[in-house]
Amino acid sequence: MVTLESLESSINLVWVMLAAFLVFFMHAGFTMVESGFTRAKNSLNIIMKNFLTISLGSLVYFMIGFGIMFGDSAGGLFGMNGFMLSGREDIDFFVFQAMFAATCATIISGAVAERIKFSSYIQITIVMTAVIYPVVGHWIWNDGWLAEMGFSDFAGSTVVHLTGATAALIAVLFLGPRLGKYTGSQVNAIPAHNMPLGAIGVFILWLGWFGFNGGSTLAADPSLVPAVVATTLLSTSASLVSATLYTKIRYGKIDPSFSLNGVLGGLVGITAGAAEISPGGSIIVGLVSGIVLVVGVRFLETRLKVDDPVGAIAVHGLCGIWGTLSVGLFSTSTGLFYGGGFHQLGIQALGILSVSAWTMIVMGIAIFVLTRFASIRVSEQEELSGLDFTEYGSNAYELKERLLDNGSQSSTVNDDFTRGHLADRLNNLNNSLSKTSL
Amino acid sequence: MVTLESLESSINLVWVMLAAFLVFFMHAGFTMVESGFTRAKNSLNIIMKNFLTISLGSLVYFMIGFGIMFGDSAGGLFGMNGFMLSGREDIDFFVFQAMFAATCATIISGAVAERIKFSSYIQITIVMTAVIYPVVGHWIWNDGWLAEMGFSDFAGSTVVHLTGATAALIAVLFLGPRLGKYTGSQVNAIPAHNMPLGAIGVFILWLGWFGFNGGSTLAADPSLVPAVVATTLLSTSASLVSATLYTKIRYGKIDPSFSLNGVLGGLVGITAGAAEISPGGSIIVGLVSGIVLVVGVRFLETRLKVDDPVGAIAVHGLCGIWGTLSVGLFSTSTGLFYGGGFHQLGIQALGILSVSAWTMIVMGIAIFVLTRFASIRVSEQEELSGLDFTEYGSNAYELKERLLDNGSQSSTVNDDFTRGHLADRLNNLNNSLSKTSL
Amino acid sequence: MVTLESLESSINLVWVMLAAFLVFFMHAGFTMVESGFTRAKNSLNIIMKNFLTISLGSLVYFMIGFGIMFGDSAGGLFGMNGFMLSGREDIDFFVFQAMFAATCATIISGAVAERIKFSSYIQITIVMTAVIYPVVGHWIWNDGWLAEMGFSDFAGSTVVHLTGATAALIAVLFLGPRLGKYTGSQVNAIPAHNMPLGAIGVFILWLGWFGFNGGSTLAADPSLVPAVVATTLLSTSASLVSATLYTKIRYGKIDPSFSLNGVLGGLVGITAGAAEISPGGSIIVGLVSGIVLVVGVRFLETRLKVDDPVGAIAVHGLCGIWGTLSVGLFSTSTGLFYGGGFHQLGIQALGILSVSAWTMIVMGIAIFVLTRFASIRVSEQEELSGLDFTEYGSNAYELKERLLDNGSQSSTVNDDFTRGHLADRLNNLNNSLSKTSL
Repeated sequence: MVTLESLESSINLVWVMLAAFLVFFMHAGFTMVESGFTRAKNSLNIIMKNFLTISLGSLVYFMIGFGIMFGDSAGGLFGMNGFMLSGREDIDFFVFQAMFAATCATIISGAVAERIKFSSYIQITIVMTAVIYPVVGHWIWNDGWLAEMGFSDFAGSTVVHLTGATAALIAVLFLGPRLGKYTGSQVNAIPAHNMPLGAIGVFILWLGWFGFNGGSTLAADPSLVPAVVATTLLSTSASLVSATLYTKIRYGKIDPSFSLNGVLGGLVGITAGAAEISPGGSIIVGLVSGIVLVVGVRFLETRLKVDDPVGAIAVHGLCGIWGTLSVGLFSTSTGLFYGGGFHQLGIQALGILSVSAWTMIVMGIAIFVLTRFASIRVSEQEELSGLDFTEYGSNAYELKERLLDNGSQSSTVNDDFTRGHLADRLNNLNNSLSKTSL
Repeated sequence: MVTLESLESSINLVWVMLAAFLVFFMHAGFTMVESGFTRAKNSLNIIMKNFLTISLGSLVYFMIGFGIMFGDSAGGLFGMNGFMLSGREDIDFFVFQAMFAATCATIISGAVAERIKFSSYIQITIVMTAVIYPVVGHWIWNDGWLAEMGFSDFAGSTVVHLTGATAALIAVLFLGPRLGKYTGSQVNAIPAHNMPLGAIGVFILWLGWFGFNGGSTLAADPSLVPAVVATTLLSTSASLVSATLYTKIRYGKIDPSFSLNGVLGGLVGITAGAAEISPGGSIIVGLVSGIVLVVGVRFLETRLKVDDPVGAIAVHGLCGIWGTLSVGLFSTSTGLFYGGGFHQLGIQALGILSVSAWTMIVMGIAIFVLTRFASIRVSEQEELSGLDFTEYGSNAYELKERLLDNGSQSSTVNDDFTRGHLADRLNNLNNSLSKTSL
Repeated sequence: MVTLESLESSINLVWVMLAAFLVFFMHAGFTMVESGFTRAKNSLNIIMKNFLTISLGSLVYFMIGFGIMFGDSAGGLFGMNGFMLSGREDIDFFVFQAMFAATCATIISGAVAERIKFSSYIQITIVMTAVIYPVVGHWIWNDGWLAEMGFSDFAGSTVVHLTGATAALIAVLFLGPRLGKYTGSQVNAIPAHNMPLGAIGVFILWLGWFGFNGGSTLAADPSLVPAVVATTLLSTSASLVSATLYTKIRYGKIDPSFSLNGVLGGLVGITAGAAEISPGGSIIVGLVSGIVLVVGVRFLETRLKVDDPVGAIAVHGLCGIWGTLSVGLFSTSTGLFYGGGFHQLGIQALGILSVSAWTMIVMGIAIFVLTRFASIRVSEQEELSGLDFTEYGSNAYELKERLLDNGSQSSTVNDDFTRGHLADRLNNLNNSLSKTSL
């Protein structure tokens, strides 16, 4: 029978499902950003990693992670039941949360791109979705000890993004930079292979983030949802503008990869405070996010020599920290600039430190154990050849065929092959010519 | 005036519209998968075919198909009224169903890619959306004879996917394999030209499928929708994992095209039972789907010599059959493994046979008639040149320009042309050299 | 407390948010269409322009435009309050409208592609979202003088599309055609560089348009929304079919770029009348739209020598005019063909003229002022090199690497560079050979 309560359930269901679908689609966005921003020879590898993150991540979260995150609490530290949804009725909530869990894990895949072993990445994904992320989530989103203290992280600047970025940092420190990234004191740019692909990815992520933040209300609440969506739009817009302007002023030229990452930085920045920061405040949060992003990427790359091919650590980590702190500054109820004093800011900082420490320790131990058995990095030769050829024996693109060998039986010729062929013939000619000249 | 009933209508409207939009977007997914998985020289043709499928398909379904599918029944066999929506008020239902109808038709386009005549494909699309699919839909989704018997196909493993795949099989048998696919007993791989494009497509299809399955509830029912979405997520995840693992074990290397098709196989596999299989059951359905997919693609390709460029027949046909049967096994109300005996399984098998037979016969006759007037296949020369050049006089990509001819008037130079030019000059040099040497 | 009224608010919220997200996503569609349909060397520029349109556009609209459009009216001409949302509670309405405003502005970016200065484009975007579009919106959607007269434009064939296209026309007239577009009386085709990218864009736009038109109801009204979505689907389908058929008949070959633009033409065409034209009527509107599009593109390109790289002026301008007039013809309540006489048609024509004149005058003055300070067009050398290299020092694609210089330190080699290198070596060889021969 239709009642006011049953209708309310239905409306909230539609809202949360819409949001879950949008968060799901963020995995397409991550895939395209990471693939487009790196080299063509590793595209298939990135695609496979991202597809397995959402797939395996969902299965592991269903079996283990969801229970640890939202089960009955063991002293505010982790949950103890609800594994495989046993005893749970809130399946829509599980669906929404499963998409989130995989999002946290997939942040790593961009930072470790172009050199991590596929099997090692899979193992890291399992650790993330089974243990590391669910425990953080329990602390903050399931009445855990940080929630008890008043730590505020609406949609996960810390829970999702800082956790993912911290784990990514640890993985990158174990891995080291890509071959050719640093020669002596020189930092070499390794260019993106397909920026339009990356741009689609950024648009999809932005779209998905309306569900990521908007859906975190868990209800179609007219007093909350519009504000969340508006701050998400305005912060991101401001961050794109400031990242672009700052790059232009600081380096003389606009850099599209900074601008696009500025979008992501602005999204991460407003994720913690989307529900309690005003539209005007969100613009300031975004303006700062864009600058944090650009400065952060450069600092990590040139000072710390952390090679993060897509800037994931700056986007999700540094902007995640900024976003978490910004609640303590701009929250209209508890923020410093709204008369709330330093109390909230202190709790936010404590949360950042705790989550970072937890993630560093567990991920550090996990990868250390992995490295006792085998290297988590592909061989030098494999890295040079590209992971696509090494692991799958194929390429992401075959844009040319039948170029020179019109009468050849092989109807599909690899472009590189053809070019090598041309070069060989040129060298042969050169040699003949030298002999002739003599 | 606002009443409980008017609000219920509004909520269900929003849910069904959301689902319809997602199913619409699946056409973008099909386009990208089919285009990315085939050769660059046929991309425009695939794009045109898919756009015309949703367009012409919607128009034909509006004029004819919807009435045949959902009109008042002539003995459980087909509908007799409601053409052009005359006398119907449920326009939201029509919108949702029109997207479905075009989906069924577009399954064919991947299987017949790279060799079918454009006009013949259009004619096949009309037959599909006017007659073949609507009749099947009437049998199963509009109190037709199969529905009467208890045949269960929640969102269309049989209605949509098996019907589409069977029609595709018939078309492929008439067409024969692409030039160069089989040389003697050897099976040649014809590589995908743009896997990132295919990957976007798979993500879009997965996203769309949440609407495809979730919307098939036709109501925002909190007791049903979350379960449908969860089983769709888990089955698909399991299928991607099993397809990847099976390929690795069986062939020594992961094959990204099998993994991506594994996603689609898992989606088709859970489509029939999404509403009556448990989350745990859906994982088993998915695991099996992934293996059915890989084994099926290889079997069709190497044993039966059926050349299906994107694996559509295995994805939609074999996984469609498996999904339909899985209801008889895993349905928590009627399935064999839940104490329901063999009854449901028998009905499911009967449905599969009936739908296949109907589709084979009508599509067989239709194509046979078409071939009496003209070949449905392009000429050998056209196939070698690529359908894009033949039919539209243009290419999907123009990635290079002004390469060698700096002073040339022609500002845009085809890459192939340039390369041929280089090769020509090299040959001339070679000849000069030979003469000099003498 | 839950009441019928609170539930109604929640449902309408979900619907409007869904629609807003879809309209947001249209910006991804515009980016891909404009990037794919132009040359690779200007792709980054197009991406940057579109991202800045939605970002800067949203900020400007938040600060100025929204108040001018929906503030209390100054004599039906423009709004006077609500800047920065001060005093406004309807934040969901703002979000939806902000996406619309940016859409109107972004129409320009395609038409001025490949030659406008980045800074000039930014200035034009600010004028559009701060003044030109909000004033038109006030006239028609906020009880302004045109609304008072009975002008009917449901989702913006005039408000959004004609306004954007008229501004684009003025900008293009100031800019002039791209280098190489016209040589004497000859019109040269400058081919699209990535049609699959363009096709994704068109699909995304079509998807987004369901929100653009459907959301313009501003409520999840079961008596209105399904009709709007159905007419949007049918008109667009008909337009794709007629654009394709007309091209085939008129020019002997199907032209995919006309077909894809036919989709957009059909969408613009039904935007004004989606809520008051019948499904059958919408098919006629669409059939005409497709032909208007093809004839319009050719007429602008060859007769008027207006170089519009993506056909935006024909799509949004001519089909926008047709769509606006079609309300006067096919509206089931006021249309000529439904017994409504010429009254509505006359008002529609007046609206078209007024909006065009306003936009022409203000945009004309704005660009004239801009040109007093500096050219709004890049230099000839910059245009030849491509805006990506000029403005950002980088390329959209790096599909090749390590081609010839196996032992080289530089691990990433630009394809063009490599080819030039090959050509140089060939020329050197040629010269050596000539000397040898002597």
